Amino acid sequence: MTIKLLAVGKTDDKDLQKLIDHYFKRLKHYCKFEIELIPDIKKSKKMDEQLQKQKEGELILAKTQASDILVLLDENGKNFSSVGFSNWLQKQMNTGMKQLIFVIGGPYGFSEEVYQRANQKISLSKMTFSHQMVRLFFTEQLYRAFTILKNEPYHHQ
Amino acid sequence: MTIKLLAVGKTDDKDLQKLIDHYFKRLKHYCKFEIELIPDIKKSKKMDEQLQKQKEGELILAKTQASDILVLLDENGKNFSSVGFSNWLQKQMNTGMKQLIFVIGGPYGFSEEVYQRANQKISLSKMTFSHQMVRLFFTEQLYRAFTILKNEPYHHQ
Repeated sequence: MTIKLLAVGKTDDKDLQKLIDHYFKRLKHYCKFEIELIPDIKKSKKMDEQLQKQKEGELILAKTQASDILVLLDENGKNFSSVGFSNWLQKQMNTGMKQLIFVIGGPYGFSEEVYQRANQKISLSKMTFSHQMVRLFFTEQLYRAFTILKNEPYHHQ
Repeated sequence: MTIKLLAVGKTDDKDLQKLIDHYFKRLKHYCKFEIELIPDIKKSKKMDEQLQKQKEGELILAKTQASDILVLLDENGKNFSSVGFSNWLQKQMNTGMKQLIFVIGGPYGFSEEVYQRANQKISLSKMTFSHQMVRLFFTEQLYRAFTILKNEPYHHQ
């Protein structure tokens, strides 16, 4: 199974990018992992939040195949513990599906169409973090999940 | 009121340190904020997790005055939303207490003595993140809380 992280907007902080790269490289030992960035929508004064979400949503759905499992990282999603998330991940891998896509939306969240298509919503925290920083949190958590599944010593209970 | 973040072990990743510094500098506009690191306990093969927690706990308590509000960042703590956390923070500032200390423990958590002394436990997430990375999460979240209290545009609902 390929695991893809789809995120809106480029990571504009070099230090953040380096930290993400660190876990990205480690993850390659456990799964076929890709990060794909969706270009920022050129914001004009005329474009309101609603329209921006709409346009971002179209780009997200264009990247999604009918057979993909689409998971939104969303504040109102399910709150897993790290062990709970690793168990959930194992179940997804057991389905035999070809691709699992996690999506981090733009600053205003997801359009209605994206919510309709999604198979699952997961929340990393009840708190809101910068949507750029969520990329790092998620990548570390995915790495942690694989070390838990493999019984490796990274995660302490 | 002074707000202090007390964390066990130095931040050994330069990129992570730069990201923390970014929010640290911004926070200075809102409050008297300090980060204090407690040296790592020299680990020997003879020292088990329990003893390490114990020794870290002694150092944490040695840094704490009787008049301080001591808050542990702990997986089993209260889960706030960002707005909920900002409201809680405002209440602490309203008490007129001199110092509010947030503590991030070592990899094995806190000793019983530290739990006994603590006034509150807060959880940033049900998931476990590296205790080094928690420093960044917390600092961003504290900055976010002040922007919420000041009605500044950093936080989108």
